[in-house]
Amino acid sequence: MSLAFEPIGTLRTCFPEKLGIPRQPGLVPLARGILRFSPSQPPAVWRDCLMGMSGFSHVWITFVFDRAQEQGWKPRVRPPRLDGKEKMGVFATRSPHRPNFLGLSLCRLEFVDLEEPSVTVSGVDILDGTPVMDLRPFHPENDVPVGEVSRGWIARAAEPGTQVAWDEGVEQEIEPFLPVATQRGMPTYSLAQAQTLVEQVVGMDPRPAHLRGRDGDWYLRVLSFDVRVRMQDGVARIHAIRP
Amino acid sequence: MSLAFEPIGTLRTCFPEKLGIPRQPGLVPLARGILRFSPSQPPAVWRDCLMGMSGFSHVWITFVFDRAQEQGWKPRVRPPRLDGKEKMGVFATRSPHRPNFLGLSLCRLEFVDLEEPSVTVSGVDILDGTPVMDLRPFHPENDVPVGEVSRGWIARAAEPGTQVAWDEGVEQEIEPFLPVATQRGMPTYSLAQAQTLVEQVVGMDPRPAHLRGRDGDWYLRVLSFDVRVRMQDGVARIHAIRP
Repeated sequence: MSLAFEPIGTLRTCFPEKLGIPRQPGLVPLARGILRFSPSQPPAVWRDCLMGMSGFSHVWITFVFDRAQEQGWKPRVRPPRLDGKEKMGVFATRSPHRPNFLGLSLCRLEFVDLEEPSVTVSGVDILDGTPVMDLRPFHPENDVPVGEVSRGWIARAAEPGTQVAWDEGVEQEIEPFLPVATQRGMPTYSLAQAQTLVEQVVGMDPRPAHLRGRDGDWYLRVLSFDVRVRMQDGVARIHAIRP
Repeated sequence: MSLAFEPIGTLRTCFPEKLGIPRQPGLVPLARGILRFSPSQPPAVWRDCLMGMSGFSHVWITFVFDRAQEQGWKPRVRPPRLDGKEKMGVFATRSPHRPNFLGLSLCRLEFVDLEEPSVTVSGVDILDGTPVMDLRPFHPENDVPVGEVSRGWIARAAEPGTQVAWDEGVEQEIEPFLPVATQRGMPTYSLAQAQTLVEQVVGMDPRPAHLRGRDGDWYLRVLSFDVRVRMQDGVARIHAIRP
Protein backbone atom coordinates (compact mmCIF):
# COMPACT_ATOMS: atom_id res chain seq x y z
CA MET A 1 0.00 0.00 0.00
CA SER A 2 1.36 3.39 -0.97
CA LEU A 3 -0.33 6.68 -0.09
CA ALA A 4 0.05 9.97 -1.93
CA PHE A 5 0.50 13.20 -0.01
CA GLU A 6 0.78 16.77 -1.11
CA PRO A 7 2.59 19.46 0.90
CA ILE A 8 0.42 22.27 2.31
CA GLY A 9 3.33 24.63 1.77
CA THR A 10 7.03 25.31 2.11
CA LEU A 11 8.90 26.44 5.19
CA ARG A 12 11.47 29.14 4.62
CA THR A 13 13.97 29.18 7.48
CA CYS A 14 17.23 30.83 8.52
CA PHE A 15 19.10 27.56 7.76
CA PRO A 16 20.06 27.31 4.09
CA GLU A 17 22.36 24.33 4.75
CA LYS A 18 22.33 21.24 6.91
CA LEU A 19 25.34 22.21 9.05
CA GLY A 20 24.17 24.59 11.76
CA ILE A 21 20.60 23.34 12.07
CA PRO A 22 19.78 22.67 15.73
CA ARG A 23 19.36 18.96 16.35
CA GLN A 24 15.97 19.43 17.99
CA PRO A 25 13.26 22.11 18.07
CA GLY A 26 13.39 24.82 20.73
CA LEU A 27 17.19 24.79 21.17
CA VAL A 28 17.64 28.06 19.28
CA PRO A 29 14.69 30.30 20.19
CA LEU A 30 15.54 32.86 17.48
CA ALA A 31 15.61 30.26 14.70
CA ARG A 32 12.64 31.43 12.65
CA GLY A 33 10.59 29.96 9.88
CA ILE A 34 7.79 31.22 7.65
CA LEU A 35 5.31 28.74 6.25
CA ARG A 36 4.10 29.90 2.84
CA PHE A 37 1.15 27.95 1.53
CA SER A 38 1.00 25.93 -1.65
CA PRO A 39 -0.66 27.33 -4.81
CA SER A 40 -2.62 24.03 -4.92
CA GLN A 41 -5.40 25.92 -3.08
CA PRO A 42 -6.44 29.57 -3.44
CA PRO A 43 -5.28 31.88 -0.60
CA ALA A 44 -8.88 32.17 0.65
CA VAL A 45 -8.93 28.43 1.44
CA TRP A 46 -5.71 28.60 3.47
CA ARG A 47 -7.07 31.68 5.27
CA ASP A 48 -10.12 29.65 6.31
CA CYS A 49 -7.87 26.81 7.48
CA LEU A 50 -6.11 29.23 9.84
CA MET A 51 -9.21 30.62 11.57
CA GLY A 52 -8.73 30.45 15.36
CA MET A 53 -5.07 29.49 15.05
CA SER A 54 -3.58 32.68 16.50
CA GLY A 55 -4.93 31.91 19.99
CA PHE A 56 -2.40 29.10 20.34
CA SER A 57 1.16 29.74 21.50
CA HIS A 58 2.70 26.56 20.07
CA VAL A 59 2.16 24.36 17.02
CA TRP A 60 3.29 20.98 15.76
CA ILE A 61 4.79 21.06 12.31
CA THR A 62 4.83 17.78 10.39
CA PHE A 63 7.26 17.98 7.49
CA VAL A 64 9.30 15.86 5.13
CA PHE A 65 13.09 15.56 5.39
CA ASP A 66 13.20 15.91 1.61
CA ARG A 67 16.96 16.37 1.33
CA ALA A 68 17.54 13.18 3.35
CA GLN A 69 15.48 11.07 0.94
CA GLU A 70 18.14 10.46 -1.68
CA GLN A 71 20.47 8.84 0.85
CA GLY A 72 17.65 6.53 1.96
CA TRP A 73 16.99 5.27 5.49
CA LYS A 74 18.68 2.73 7.72
CA PRO A 75 17.21 0.52 10.48
CA ARG A 76 20.06 1.52 12.81
CA VAL A 77 21.62 4.97 13.01
CA ARG A 78 24.40 6.69 14.96
CA PRO A 79 22.84 9.56 16.95
CA PRO A 80 25.17 12.61 17.07
CA ARG A 81 24.38 12.99 20.78
CA LEU A 82 26.12 9.66 21.39
CA ASP A 83 29.20 11.08 19.62
CA GLY A 84 28.51 8.83 16.65
CA LYS A 85 30.00 5.91 18.55
CA GLU A 86 26.87 3.89 19.25
CA LYS A 87 24.02 2.63 17.10
CA MET A 88 20.32 2.91 17.94
CA GLY A 89 17.18 1.69 16.19
CA VAL A 90 15.85 4.48 14.01
CA PHE A 91 12.46 4.48 15.84
CA ALA A 92 14.32 5.18 19.09
CA THR A 93 15.75 8.34 17.49
CA ARG A 94 14.68 11.50 15.67
CA SER A 95 17.01 10.79 12.74
CA PRO A 96 15.88 12.21 9.37
CA HIS A 97 16.88 8.93 7.71
CA ARG A 98 13.71 7.11 8.79
CA PRO A 99 10.93 5.29 6.97
CA ASN A 100 8.74 7.91 5.24
CA PHE A 101 11.24 10.68 6.16
CA LEU A 102 8.65 12.45 8.31
CA GLY A 103 9.80 15.13 10.71
CA LEU A 104 7.91 16.58 13.65
CA SER A 105 8.77 19.78 15.51
CA LEU A 106 7.09 21.71 18.28
CA CYS A 107 7.55 25.40 17.50
CA ARG A 108 6.43 28.67 19.02
CA LEU A 109 3.72 30.34 16.96
CA GLU A 110 4.91 33.91 16.42
CA PHE A 111 2.46 35.33 13.92
CA VAL A 112 -0.43 34.31 11.71
CA ASP A 113 -0.54 36.62 8.68
CA LEU A 114 -4.02 36.22 7.22
CA GLU A 115 -3.21 38.71 4.48
CA GLU A 116 -0.53 36.73 2.63
CA PRO A 117 -1.46 34.15 4.20
CA SER A 118 1.58 32.77 6.06
CA VAL A 119 2.53 31.51 9.51
CA THR A 120 5.72 32.57 11.30
CA VAL A 121 7.17 30.22 13.90
CA SER A 122 10.34 30.13 15.99
CA GLY A 123 12.55 27.50 17.55
CA VAL A 124 12.77 25.67 14.22
CA ASP A 125 15.26 22.89 13.51
CA ILE A 126 14.29 22.67 9.87
CA LEU A 127 16.16 23.23 6.60
CA ASP A 128 15.13 26.18 4.39
CA GLY A 129 12.70 25.11 1.67
CA THR A 130 11.28 22.08 3.51
CA PRO A 131 7.85 20.79 2.40
CA VAL A 132 5.29 20.92 5.22
CA MET A 133 2.52 18.32 5.48
CA ASP A 134 0.50 19.46 8.48
CA LEU A 135 0.08 22.07 11.16
CA ARG A 136 -1.79 21.42 14.41
CA PRO A 137 -2.14 23.20 17.74
CA PHE A 138 -0.26 22.10 20.83
CA HIS A 139 -2.71 20.89 23.52
CA PRO A 140 -1.02 20.75 26.93
CA GLU A 141 -3.64 18.25 28.21
CA ASN A 142 -3.03 15.73 25.44
CA ASP A 143 0.56 16.35 24.36
CA VAL A 144 2.28 16.08 27.73
CA PRO A 145 2.41 12.67 29.43
CA VAL A 146 0.60 12.06 32.70
CA GLY A 147 2.81 10.25 35.21
CA GLU A 148 6.43 9.28 35.08
CA VAL A 149 8.53 9.78 31.94
CA SER A 150 11.55 7.70 30.93
CA ARG A 151 13.90 9.26 28.44
CA GLY A 152 15.70 6.14 27.25
CA TRP A 153 19.23 6.59 25.93
CA ILE A 154 18.94 10.39 25.65
CA ALA A 155 19.05 10.60 29.47
CA ARG A 156 22.79 9.84 29.30
CA ALA A 157 23.58 11.99 26.24
CA ALA A 158 24.05 15.70 26.90
CA GLU A 159 23.48 18.24 24.13
CA PRO A 160 26.89 19.51 22.96
CA GLY A 161 27.73 23.16 23.48
CA THR A 162 30.60 25.65 23.48
CA GLN A 163 31.46 29.16 24.59
CA VAL A 164 31.21 31.84 21.87
CA ALA A 165 33.05 35.15 21.35
CA TRP A 166 33.10 37.76 18.56
CA ASP A 167 36.26 39.31 17.14
CA GLU A 168 36.07 43.08 17.33
CA GLY A 169 33.66 44.72 14.89
CA VAL A 170 32.55 41.44 13.28
CA GLU A 171 29.04 41.67 14.76
CA GLN A 172 28.42 44.69 12.51
CA GLU A 173 29.36 42.80 9.34
CA ILE A 174 25.98 41.05 9.43
CA GLU A 175 23.97 44.17 8.66
CA PRO A 176 24.24 44.33 4.84
CA PHE A 177 23.06 40.71 4.54
CA LEU A 178 19.76 41.13 6.35
CA PRO A 179 17.83 42.72 3.47
CA VAL A 180 19.29 40.08 1.12
CA ALA A 181 17.85 37.24 3.24
CA THR A 182 14.43 38.89 3.37
CA GLN A 183 14.43 39.51 -0.38
CA ARG A 184 15.10 35.81 -0.88
CA GLY A 185 11.98 35.00 1.16
CA MET A 186 13.64 34.09 4.44
CA PRO A 187 12.35 35.32 7.81
CA THR A 188 13.02 38.91 8.91
CA TYR A 189 15.61 39.79 11.58
CA SER A 190 16.81 42.97 13.25
CA LEU A 191 20.62 43.27 13.56
CA ALA A 192 20.51 42.45 17.31
CA GLN A 193 18.31 39.41 16.69
CA ALA A 194 20.57 38.14 13.91
CA GLN A 195 23.62 38.53 16.16
CA THR A 196 21.94 36.48 18.89
CA LEU A 197 20.83 33.88 16.34
CA VAL A 198 24.43 33.48 15.13
CA GLU A 199 25.71 33.14 18.70
CA GLN A 200 23.10 30.52 19.56
CA VAL A 201 23.84 28.48 16.45
CA VAL A 202 27.63 28.60 16.82
CA GLY A 203 27.23 27.85 20.55
CA MET A 204 25.80 24.39 19.74
CA ASP A 205 29.11 23.43 18.06
CA PRO A 206 27.13 21.75 15.29
CA ARG A 207 30.14 20.00 13.71
CA PRO A 208 30.20 16.23 13.22
CA ALA A 209 30.89 14.24 16.38
CA HIS A 210 34.55 13.44 15.56
CA LEU A 211 35.42 17.16 15.24
CA ARG A 212 33.26 18.54 18.04
CA GLY A 213 35.10 20.51 20.72
CA ARG A 214 38.36 20.36 18.73
CA ASP A 215 40.53 23.33 17.76
CA GLY A 216 40.35 24.39 14.14
CA ASP A 217 38.64 26.64 11.57
CA TRP A 218 35.09 25.97 10.45
CA TYR A 219 32.14 27.83 9.08
CA LEU A 220 28.42 27.50 8.78
CA ARG A 221 25.75 29.31 6.83
CA VAL A 222 22.94 31.28 8.48
CA LEU A 223 20.35 33.31 6.55
CA SER A 224 22.34 34.56 3.53
CA PHE A 225 25.88 34.62 4.91
CA ASP A 226 28.77 32.46 6.09
CA VAL A 227 29.85 32.63 9.70
CA ARG A 228 33.59 31.91 9.95
CA VAL A 229 34.69 30.44 13.25
CA ARG A 230 38.05 29.69 14.84
CA MET A 231 37.89 27.25 17.71
CA GLN A 232 40.72 27.70 20.21
CA ASP A 233 41.08 26.69 23.87
CA GLY A 234 37.41 25.77 24.07
CA VAL A 235 36.13 29.09 22.72
CA ALA A 236 34.47 29.46 19.31
CA ARG A 237 35.60 32.90 18.04
CA ILE A 238 33.53 34.38 15.21
CA HIS A 239 36.15 36.17 13.12
CA ALA A 240 34.39 37.00 9.86
CA ILE A 241 31.00 37.23 8.15
CA ARG A 242 31.14 36.52 4.40
CA PRO A 243 28.62 36.32 1.54
CA MET B 1 4.31 18.01 -5.95
CA SER B 2 2.98 14.70 -4.63
CA LEU B 3 4.95 12.41 -2.34
CA ALA B 4 4.47 8.68 -1.92
CA PHE B 5 4.48 7.14 1.53
CA GLU B 6 4.22 3.58 2.70
CA PRO B 7 2.88 2.58 6.13
CA ILE B 8 5.37 0.97 8.50
CA GLY B 9 2.53 -1.16 9.85
CA THR B 10 -1.03 -1.35 11.08
CA LEU B 11 -2.34 -0.44 14.52
CA ARG B 12 -4.84 -2.88 15.98
CA THR B 13 -6.87 -1.18 18.70
CA CYS B 14 -9.84 -1.80 20.98
CA PHE B 15 -11.96 0.56 18.82
CA PRO B 16 -13.51 -1.24 15.84
CA GLU B 17 -15.82 1.70 15.07
CA LYS B 18 -15.59 5.47 15.08
CA LEU B 19 -18.18 6.03 17.83
CA GLY B 20 -16.47 5.53 21.17
CA ILE B 21 -12.97 6.56 20.18
CA PRO B 22 -11.61 9.13 22.63
CA ARG B 23 -11.27 12.52 20.99
CA GLN B 24 -7.64 12.89 22.07
CA PRO B 25 -4.83 10.60 23.21
CA GLY B 26 -4.42 9.87 26.91
CA LEU B 27 -8.10 10.33 27.85
CA VAL B 28 -8.68 6.59 28.22
CA PRO B 29 -5.52 5.10 29.77
CA LEU B 30 -6.66 1.52 29.13
CA ALA B 31 -7.28 2.09 25.42
CA ARG B 32 -4.62 -0.18 23.97
CA GLY B 33 -3.10 -0.61 20.57
CA ILE B 34 -0.64 -3.05 19.02
CA LEU B 35 1.48 -1.92 16.11
CA ARG B 36 2.20 -4.85 13.80
CA PHE B 37 4.81 -4.14 11.19
CA SER B 38 4.36 -4.27 7.45
CA PRO B 39 5.57 -7.27 5.42
CA SER B 40 7.33 -4.73 3.16
CA GLN B 41 10.45 -5.37 5.29
CA PRO B 42 11.60 -8.63 6.88
CA PRO B 43 11.01 -8.88 10.67
CA ALA B 44 14.78 -8.59 11.28
CA VAL B 45 14.76 -5.08 9.80
CA TRP B 46 11.91 -3.90 12.05
CA ARG B 47 13.68 -5.50 15.02
CA ASP B 48 16.76 -3.39 14.25
CA CYS B 49 14.58 -0.28 13.95
CA LEU B 50 13.32 -0.85 17.52
CA MET B 51 16.72 -1.17 19.21
CA GLY B 52 16.84 1.12 22.27
CA MET B 53 13.13 1.91 22.06
CA SER B 54 12.03 0.16 25.25
CA GLY B 55 13.88 2.70 27.43
CA PHE B 56 11.31 5.35 26.53
CA SER B 57 8.02 5.64 28.40
CA HIS B 58 6.11 7.53 25.68
CA VAL B 59 6.07 7.60 21.89
CA TRP B 60 4.59 9.73 19.13
CA ILE B 61 2.58 7.79 16.61
CA THR B 62 2.08 9.42 13.22
CA PHE B 63 -0.76 7.74 11.37
CA VAL B 64 -3.26 8.26 8.57
CA PHE B 65 -6.97 8.85 9.20
CA ASP B 66 -7.65 6.45 6.34
CA ARG B 67 -11.38 6.07 6.97
CA ALA B 68 -11.81 9.88 6.91
CA GLN B 69 -10.24 10.15 3.45
CA GLU B 70 -13.30 9.31 1.39
CA GLN B 71 -15.28 12.20 2.91
CA GLY B 72 -12.45 14.59 2.06
CA TRP B 73 -11.30 17.57 4.11
CA LYS B 74 -12.73 21.02 4.75
CA PRO B 75 -10.97 24.32 5.51
CA ARG B 76 -13.36 24.95 8.41
CA VAL B 77 -14.70 22.29 10.75
CA ARG B 78 -17.07 22.09 13.75
CA PRO B 79 -15.07 20.78 16.73
CA PRO B 80 -17.21 18.43 18.90
CA ARG B 81 -15.83 20.18 22.01
CA LEU B 82 -17.63 23.35 20.89
CA ASP B 83 -20.87 21.32 20.74
CA GLY B 84 -20.77 21.48 16.95
CA LYS B 85 -22.06 25.04 17.10
CA GLU B 86 -18.96 26.95 16.03
CA LYS B 87 -16.54 26.62 13.15
CA MET B 88 -12.76 26.70 13.40
CA GLY B 89 -10.00 26.58 10.82
CA VAL B 90 -8.89 22.99 10.41
CA PHE B 91 -5.26 23.84 11.35
CA ALA B 92 -6.56 25.19 14.69
CA THR B 93 -8.06 21.74 15.39
CA ARG B 94 -7.12 18.07 15.51
CA SER B 95 -9.92 17.12 13.10
CA PRO B 96 -9.27 13.98 10.99
CA HIS B 97 -10.67 15.81 7.96
CA ARG B 98 -7.47 17.76 7.32
CA PRO B 99 -5.11 18.10 4.37
CA ASN B 100 -3.09 14.86 4.10
CA PHE B 101 -5.27 13.22 6.80
CA LEU B 102 -2.28 12.83 9.13
CA GLY B 103 -2.91 12.03 12.77
CA LEU B 104 -0.51 12.40 15.67
CA SER B 105 -0.91 10.85 19.12
CA LEU B 106 1.27 10.74 22.19
CA CYS B 107 0.87 7.28 23.71
CA ARG B 108 2.38 5.38 26.59
CA LEU B 109 4.80 2.72 25.45
CA GLU B 110 3.72 -0.48 27.20
CA PHE B 111 5.80 -3.19 25.60
CA VAL B 112 8.26 -3.72 22.77
CA ASP B 113 8.01 -7.33 21.59
CA LEU B 114 11.21 -8.00 19.65
CA GLU B 115 10.11 -11.55 18.94
CA GLU B 116 7.06 -10.82 16.77
CA PRO B 117 8.11 -7.86 16.42
CA SER B 118 5.31 -5.53 17.64
CA VAL B 119 4.86 -2.50 19.87
CA THR B 120 2.04 -2.23 22.43
CA VAL B 121 0.91 1.26 23.44
CA SER B 122 -1.89 2.66 25.58
CA GLY B 123 -3.96 5.82 25.72
CA VAL B 124 -4.78 5.47 22.01
CA ASP B 125 -7.50 7.48 20.26
CA ILE B 126 -7.11 5.55 17.02
CA LEU B 127 -9.44 3.34 14.98
CA ASP B 128 -8.64 -0.39 14.69
CA GLY B 129 -6.71 -1.15 11.50
CA THR B 130 -5.17 2.32 11.07
CA PRO B 131 -2.02 2.59 8.92
CA VAL B 132 0.96 3.96 10.87
CA MET B 133 3.60 6.11 9.17
CA ASP B 134 6.12 6.77 11.93
CA LEU B 135 7.09 6.10 15.52
CA ARG B 136 9.40 8.38 17.49
CA PRO B 137 10.35 8.74 21.14
CA PHE B 138 8.93 11.50 23.33
CA HIS B 139 11.71 13.89 24.45
CA PRO B 140 10.57 15.99 27.40
CA GLU B 141 13.22 18.63 26.61
CA ASN B 142 12.08 19.21 23.06
CA ASP B 143 8.40 18.28 23.08
CA VAL B 144 7.21 20.48 25.92
CA PRO B 145 7.19 24.25 25.43
CA VAL B 146 9.46 26.52 27.44
CA GLY B 147 7.57 29.51 28.85
CA GLU B 148 3.93 30.41 28.74
CA VAL B 149 1.41 28.34 26.79
CA SER B 150 -1.84 29.65 25.26
CA ARG B 151 -4.45 27.05 24.47
CA GLY B 152 -6.59 29.05 22.04
CA TRP B 153 -10.26 28.11 21.80
CA ILE B 154 -9.81 24.80 23.65
CA ALA B 155 -9.31 26.78 26.89
CA ARG B 156 -13.06 27.49 26.91
CA ALA B 157 -14.21 24.03 25.76
CA ALA B 158 -14.38 21.35 28.45
CA GLU B 159 -14.17 17.68 27.55
CA PRO B 160 -17.64 16.16 27.84
CA GLY B 161 -18.22 13.47 30.45
CA THR B 162 -20.94 11.58 32.31
CA GLN B 163 -21.44 9.34 35.32
CA VAL B 164 -21.48 5.58 34.58
CA ALA B 165 -23.22 2.65 36.31
CA TRP B 166 -23.59 -1.08 35.52
CA ASP B 167 -26.83 -3.00 35.74
CA GLU B 168 -26.43 -6.00 38.00
CA GLY B 169 -24.37 -8.85 36.56
CA VAL B 170 -23.68 -7.11 33.23
CA GLU B 171 -19.99 -6.65 34.02
CA GLN B 172 -19.59 -10.44 33.80
CA GLU B 173 -21.10 -10.61 30.31
CA ILE B 174 -17.83 -9.28 28.86
CA GLU B 175 -15.81 -12.38 29.68
CA PRO B 176 -16.67 -14.65 26.71
CA PHE B 177 -15.74 -11.90 24.24
CA LEU B 178 -12.17 -11.36 25.43
CA PRO B 179 -10.63 -14.40 23.68
CA VAL B 180 -12.56 -13.47 20.51
CA ALA B 181 -10.96 -10.01 20.40
CA THR B 182 -7.50 -11.47 20.91
CA GLN B 183 -8.07 -14.09 18.20
CA ARG B 184 -8.97 -11.28 15.83
CA GLY B 185 -5.60 -9.63 16.55
CA MET B 186 -6.78 -6.94 18.95
CA PRO B 187 -4.92 -6.12 22.18
CA THR B 188 -5.23 -8.42 25.20
CA TYR B 189 -7.33 -7.51 28.28
CA SER B 190 -8.11 -9.15 31.61
CA LEU B 191 -11.79 -9.03 32.63
CA ALA B 192 -11.15 -6.26 35.18
CA GLN B 193 -9.22 -4.20 32.62
CA ALA B 194 -11.93 -4.62 29.99
CA GLN B 195 -14.57 -3.51 32.52
CA THR B 196 -12.59 -0.37 33.32
CA LEU B 197 -12.02 0.28 29.61
CA VAL B 198 -15.78 0.11 28.96
CA GLU B 199 -16.51 2.46 31.86
CA GLN B 200 -13.90 4.97 30.68
CA VAL B 201 -15.22 4.94 27.12
CA VAL B 202 -18.91 5.24 28.10
CA GLY B 203 -17.97 7.95 30.63
CA MET B 204 -16.84 10.25 27.80
CA ASP B 205 -20.42 10.29 26.41
CA PRO B 206 -19.00 10.01 22.89
CA ARG B 207 -22.29 10.69 21.11
CA PRO B 208 -22.60 13.53 18.59
CA ALA B 209 -22.89 17.00 20.14
CA HIS B 210 -26.66 17.36 19.61
CA LEU B 211 -27.39 14.15 21.57
CA ARG B 212 -24.76 14.49 24.28
CA GLY B 213 -26.07 14.49 27.87
CA ARG B 214 -29.62 13.64 26.71
CA ASP B 215 -31.73 10.75 27.91
CA GLY B 216 -32.07 7.82 25.55
CA ASP B 217 -30.69 4.46 24.46
CA TRP B 218 -27.42 4.17 22.61
CA TYR B 219 -24.62 1.73 22.09
CA LEU B 220 -21.00 1.64 21.08
CA ARG B 221 -18.59 -1.07 20.09
CA VAL B 222 -15.47 -1.90 22.10
CA LEU B 223 -13.11 -4.79 21.27
CA SER B 224 -15.49 -7.43 19.84
CA PHE B 225 -18.77 -6.53 21.56
CA ASP B 226 -21.54 -3.96 21.74
CA VAL B 227 -22.02 -2.00 24.94
CA ARG B 228 -25.71 -1.08 25.33
CA VAL B 229 -26.33 2.06 27.33
CA ARG B 230 -29.45 3.71 28.73
CA MET B 231 -28.97 7.35 29.66
CA GLN B 232 -31.34 8.53 32.39
CA ASP B 233 -31.17 11.43 34.84
CA GLY B 234 -27.56 12.14 33.91
CA VAL B 235 -26.33 8.57 34.49
CA ALA B 236 -25.21 6.26 31.68
CA ARG B 237 -26.36 2.76 32.75
CA ILE B 238 -24.71 -0.15 30.97
CA HIS B 239 -27.53 -2.66 30.69
CA ALA B 240 -26.26 -5.27 28.24
CA ILE B 241 -23.19 -6.60 26.46
CA ARG B 242 -23.96 -8.12 23.05
CA PRO B 243 -21.92 -9.70 20.23
